[in-house]
Amino acid sequence: MTAFDHRKYRPAPAINLPDRQWPSRTITRAPRWASVDLRDGNQALLEPMNVGQKQRLWALLVKLGFKEIEIGFPSASQPDYDFARWLIEAKQIPDDVTVQVLVQAREDLIVRTFEALQGAKRAIVHVYNSTSTVQRERVFGLDRAGIADIARQGAAMVKREADKHPECEWTFEYSAESFSNTEMDFVVEVCEAVMDVWQPTAAKPCIINLPSTVESSTPNVYADQVEYFATHISRRDALILSVHTHNDRGCGVAAAELAVLAGADRVEGTLFGNGERTGNMDITTMAMNLYSQGIDPELDLSNPDEIIAVTTECTGIALHPRHPWFGELVYTAFSGSHQDAIRKCLHQQKEDEAWQVAYLPIDPKDLGRDYQAVIRVNSQSGKGGVAFVLERDYGLVLPRWLQVELAQVVQKASEAVSGEIDSASIHALFRQHFVADSGALALQGYQIRHEGGHDAVDATVDEKGVSCQLRGEGEGALSAFINALMRYSGRQINVVDYSEHAIGTGTDAEAAAYVQLNINGQRYSGAAFDHDTVSASLKAVLSALNRARAAGGSDVLAA
Amino acid sequence: MTAFDHRKYRPAPAINLPDRQWPSRTITRAPRWASVDLRDGNQALLEPMNVGQKQRLWALLVKLGFKEIEIGFPSASQPDYDFARWLIEAKQIPDDVTVQVLVQAREDLIVRTFEALQGAKRAIVHVYNSTSTVQRERVFGLDRAGIADIARQGAAMVKREADKHPECEWTFEYSAESFSNTEMDFVVEVCEAVMDVWQPTAAKPCIINLPSTVESSTPNVYADQVEYFATHISRRDALILSVHTHNDRGCGVAAAELAVLAGADRVEGTLFGNGERTGNMDITTMAMNLYSQGIDPELDLSNPDEIIAVTTECTGIALHPRHPWFGELVYTAFSGSHQDAIRKCLHQQKEDEAWQVAYLPIDPKDLGRDYQAVIRVNSQSGKGGVAFVLERDYGLVLPRWLQVELAQVVQKASEAVSGEIDSASIHALFRQHFVADSGALALQGYQIRHEGGHDAVDATVDEKGVSCQLRGEGEGALSAFINALMRYSGRQINVVDYSEHAIGTGTDAEAAAYVQLNINGQRYSGAAFDHDTVSASLKAVLSALNRARAAGGSDVLAA
Repeated sequence: MTAFDHRKYRPAPAINLPDRQWPSRTITRAPRWASVDLRDGNQALLEPMNVGQKQRLWALLVKLGFKEIEIGFPSASQPDYDFARWLIEAKQIPDDVTVQVLVQAREDLIVRTFEALQGAKRAIVHVYNSTSTVQRERVFGLDRAGIADIARQGAAMVKREADKHPECEWTFEYSAESFSNTEMDFVVEVCEAVMDVWQPTAAKPCIINLPSTVESSTPNVYADQVEYFATHISRRDALILSVHTHNDRGCGVAAAELAVLAGADRVEGTLFGNGERTGNMDITTMAMNLYSQGIDPELDLSNPDEIIAVTTECTGIALHPRHPWFGELVYTAFSGSHQDAIRKCLHQQKEDEAWQVAYLPIDPKDLGRDYQAVIRVNSQSGKGGVAFVLERDYGLVLPRWLQVELAQVVQKASEAVSGEIDSASIHALFRQHFVADSGALALQGYQIRHEGGHDAVDATVDEKGVSCQLRGEGEGALSAFINALMRYSGRQINVVDYSEHAIGTGTDAEAAAYVQLNINGQRYSGAAFDHDTVSASLKAVLSALNRARAAGGSDVLAA
Repeated sequence: MTAFDHRKYRPAPAINLPDRQWPSRTITRAPRWASVDLRDGNQALLEPMNVGQKQRLWALLVKLGFKEIEIGFPSASQPDYDFARWLIEAKQIPDDVTVQVLVQAREDLIVRTFEALQGAKRAIVHVYNSTSTVQRERVFGLDRAGIADIARQGAAMVKREADKHPECEWTFEYSAESFSNTEMDFVVEVCEAVMDVWQPTAAKPCIINLPSTVESSTPNVYADQVEYFATHISRRDALILSVHTHNDRGCGVAAAELAVLAGADRVEGTLFGNGERTGNMDITTMAMNLYSQGIDPELDLSNPDEIIAVTTECTGIALHPRHPWFGELVYTAFSGSHQDAIRKCLHQQKEDEAWQVAYLPIDPKDLGRDYQAVIRVNSQSGKGGVAFVLERDYGLVLPRWLQVELAQVVQKASEAVSGEIDSASIHALFRQHFVADSGALALQGYQIRHEGGHDAVDATVDEKGVSCQLRGEGEGALSAFINALMRYSGRQINVVDYSEHAIGTGTDAEAAAYVQLNINGQRYSGAAFDHDTVSASLKAVLSALNRARAAGGSDVLAA
């Protein structure tokens, strides 16, 4: 066979479950979360965590609100053993938190595990053995009965050791490791055998955990398997159905979500999905998925910077910039139409109504992020982004036609540098192209007489240093000024659109005026600022004339 | 409301589809892939690609086997326009590849788009407008009819411009942008309106694309929406049903996979999922998911190093070490039980049978990777890993009991340094603890007489430089040597287990011998190497005695 040849693989078997119920259900509350960061996560690191790192990660998990935390594999690792002892002896376990430890179904390891837990008030002992066909045939060389025996004996040894320490409130957990690659009838058989030993009740249930140790099917198949199990196991009310998915096909979160629809009560996973190979399922993502649907995630993820700092320091793995909910790029919009839509939605979003903003599934502020802080303008972003940064950083609310014109200017500049254009550069481009400050035409002074709804303007306008006295009349100062300009320039000038707004408040407030003129059939936009609103509007007209002058190349008033 | 408060969000509405068929289906072939790397991917970069980068990414996409490639948004970006012109004028488009361009349903942009495509032999013109409730109400301020009109007019303009250039083989694509947040009956209505204009047929179908522009529900809901659409649209045989998912909830791949079960023919996505915010769906992952199930992915992903190099250079975003199938850690096993299982399965895997290896869903060699090259041994890994690296790097096949003992030594050393232990260190620990070379007891020489199935050994053994002459008899040299040692040391010595194998082949081959002794009730293991197999076995016995000596602190022969 050649190296890259799909024919050497066989599909993972799906099960026939035509009466499945899970696809019609909806998740309405958070599952019981169990963090396996300190065990599965730690086990998958090039540099396992040292004591200080474990302590910091433990403190974070408690702070976020995890109530069940797997702290290690104490029978297999001296540091894990020592960490368990430290938690118990230094009284680090809050009353509402239960520690969990993993152990294989082997006597020496089980005995050692209970040693590690001596003095704990409450603990989950998590025993496992592998049940899949491949593991049975190729790893253990045992048939179904042999594998069921390992499980049964492991369960019995766990019970025996627990019975020696009735002062601790024990919960037993059994994992049929490689569950998703096991025949479903056999998984049920093995778990029945384990429960026959443990005799769980509704008042004192055990945990049955169903791992997709290696993700090997589409997530709906895993959900079918979980629903099969949930509906075929006896004593369903005496067990907490737990799932533990991995991410080999990139669907670890999806599999856990569909498994909850299929009946899982509890989800094991890690922060940002750290874990063997492609990682464990990512509890942070699933919790935020629930949050975004109005469901209490029962974890406080409001300080992502802390979560990211601690996990990065402990795992040595940086968060991907596109990581759901938490990556640095996920509240960034580059596309102009996205930015435009976000801006419109943010303007209309009311404090007391449900969040309805296109392209922003949640308010980034919930996670201490800022849509504003991360918006970027480059050659791919259109008028929306340009308008957004000018409003955010300079208080300028440009009319739509000016957004369009400015966006073209910005885009050209952006393409020339082939990268990001910052807010200050956009503002500079705006002033350079649309504000008259340094243009050929400049307003020196004016007088307005307003009589009977009619205005007469006498204005002094310089053109390249030469003063002109203009006089015009009209309804309103703007109209009178335009009429004066038409008379002295010989050009046909119409106001297409006009708007004005204050920047800032109180006596320091400045007026911004925007005007679009049609001059001899061509449209030109201009803007201006002044502490006086009339001055701002007249200067905006001169800004537009300056653009026409620059485009046409000839003087306006001298002509 | 406080900042982190789920109550400000509403669940995305699910649809009622009790007779859904998709959960009972299985994917049996790859969908039509459409790469949007050069458009959606490029649009989401801080630094949009320059011409050289676009050319390199285009060449890669063609090489991987993409037959439909969206090359940009030429009416909105001059570089995208120029790139389209370059592809056409420099004849860069292979005969079996179709370029696709995106355009909003606006006349000026559509006209400009067809300008960009002049001279192309074949092209997909992809027109879109947004249909969701939020977009209608808050962005466009239009009712359903107004939004449907935009779609209808856009479709008509596309058709009109296409009709002017009958020399090109056009395919039309329509996206109901924000499909997954739109009422399903309305999406069907809008798409019917578009198809009324285009009049597609089975012989000349159009593409209808259904984006989850922002992922906002569990993937089964998206699949329901796609199945609803597929079963409610008329002229199903005259359209290619395309999906385009994003990854806001970390389920973009899952959504696309379930959508294919629900009837999608075609999947738009990008390499490694680059795209706006959390990214587009990741075609590389979905293709490998199919591959691992024995389905031809219809993309050649056999050279990941090249794919990673080009995409990283073009996007400026590094691949996450746990990225499914391609990340640097995904064929690494740290856990001892995983390593042990992998080793056993690899030994049993036959060339011509389907792949059956625990924890390795595919043979890493298919992607030019090596399970061997990335196995690491640290304090979390047990005997399996230790055995694996000694066999791989030194040709040593340790018996199980020696694996167990060595693993404990390695684990202690690993915990002391709290990090990775490399292969050379493991080998050094093995020699230091189990091989006699520099021990107190050393074999100087021996004679063996073999008569009538019986052996007599005369051996010279030094203990701390003092020579002892030993004589013993038994069945076989080993037994005779043990008897001699018992006589001179006064200890009870039994051979618990013994094994020997050659290292290398031919005249240079060395023998490795491993022996486990029971000395006065305690077990001690030893190993030795020699070009002569008998010497190796006798020296292995002395190695074990040296361990006993070191543990007990007293001389063996002098005693």
